[in-house]
Amino acid sequence: MKGKLIVFEGGEGSGKTTQLQRSQQWLESSGWLARLQQVLPSLANPLLVTREPGGTTLGIKLRQLLLSSDPEDAIQSRTELLLFAADRAQHVATRLQPHLEAGGLILCDRFTDSTVAYQGYGRGLSLVLIDQLNQIATDGLTSDLTLWLDLDVEMGLERSRQRLQQSGGGLDRIERGEIAFHQRVQQGFQALSQAAPERIVTIDASQPEAMVADKIQRILEEKLWQWYPQVSML
Amino acid sequence: MKGKLIVFEGGEGSGKTTQLQRSQQWLESSGWLARLQQVLPSLANPLLVTREPGGTTLGIKLRQLLLSSDPEDAIQSRTELLLFAADRAQHVATRLQPHLEAGGLILCDRFTDSTVAYQGYGRGLSLVLIDQLNQIATDGLTSDLTLWLDLDVEMGLERSRQRLQQSGGGLDRIERGEIAFHQRVQQGFQALSQAAPERIVTIDASQPEAMVADKIQRILEEKLWQWYPQVSML
Repeated sequence: MKGKLIVFEGGEGSGKTTQLQRSQQWLESSGWLARLQQVLPSLANPLLVTREPGGTTLGIKLRQLLLSSDPEDAIQSRTELLLFAADRAQHVATRLQPHLEAGGLILCDRFTDSTVAYQGYGRGLSLVLIDQLNQIATDGLTSDLTLWLDLDVEMGLERSRQRLQQSGGGLDRIERGEIAFHQRVQQGFQALSQAAPERIVTIDASQPEAMVADKIQRILEEKLWQWYPQVSML
Repeated sequence: MKGKLIVFEGGEGSGKTTQLQRSQQWLESSGWLARLQQVLPSLANPLLVTREPGGTTLGIKLRQLLLSSDPEDAIQSRTELLLFAADRAQHVATRLQPHLEAGGLILCDRFTDSTVAYQGYGRGLSLVLIDQLNQIATDGLTSDLTLWLDLDVEMGLERSRQRLQQSGGGLDRIERGEIAFHQRVQQGFQALSQAAPERIVTIDASQPEAMVADKIQRILEEKLWQWYPQVSML
């Protein structure tokens, strides 16, 4: 049996990380995690929650390199693309593939579509090149379901700013990018969701957090019955 | 005008780093460096001596990641390939291309052929994939001259061992690889030199160091007159 990979995608302030955490909590509180544990006894934990970049020990180091601003050694666009691909290759080979081969469920914060949106549409790097690199890094692995949290760019950046004021943190190199950059990223996610509607579900992220969470839970519930039919035998 | 890229390639213990240093010293002592300074007044130093991996600030950090042995987070082959490509992309864009555009001369310790030999022939990764990644990382840049220091594998490993005993250092992760691996790397360099004899010159590295240096100097001298004809007007 083969596991399932669910990816949360979206621009700055779209709430994808919050929604991923709410989905994780829902899987636990709804009894789904316990059901998966029963049908997947070989896995210590049938649910893997992870993210890109930074889902491996190597990835954490690469994430530090990527997000640090060092004017002495400005990271070139192609370099950035290749570092993201290296993180992904390591993440897929050491974390995602083994968990999927054991039948487990994965919630992942960002995956290949973010690279297309940010580096392709956002920074204008070749989409053909990015597809090649995604293919190399994933060894052909694609998500079973991608939830795209669709939110107006200005609203998302405003949310990010508020969150940072509350936490006292600063904007990282990618968040500091100009509005036009984030508009292009948004167009990228739009084009991807239109090209693969069977894989990418668009979620209206302008609604209140609890409503968005509820929408996502209904989608997950439907998919889980379909993906793990043996649960109905319990 | 366009500068020239000279690459030194070879397996463990082949003496390529020593020979690169001797070539640099010869360029200085023979008067060639002074001549290049006269015909390239815009460059503070017409000669750039560099290496891969590790030719940039980012590259030095990546080199540490690549050469460190961490059993908790074993670097996957594809990850390694992508990290080498990231280092190369940064090196080409920030160091090599600007120097070549200004007309300068470069001596580089390892370049794309090492990736084909070590990761392709040595580790068995797809040669098509490696060619794609080399193309991406270099943006099409190839060497003008590659000096392949051809040495029997067992002799090279013995030289490496002696050098390390003298310096008291330990073998790094790549040098620790088994003999069969190094034999495959050697076959890779052989295949590359046979496929591109106009670009790759094979140097018999089993000869005494001074003889090898002399052979290389004669090749460089001939190329330099050809590449920088304006020197004859001085």
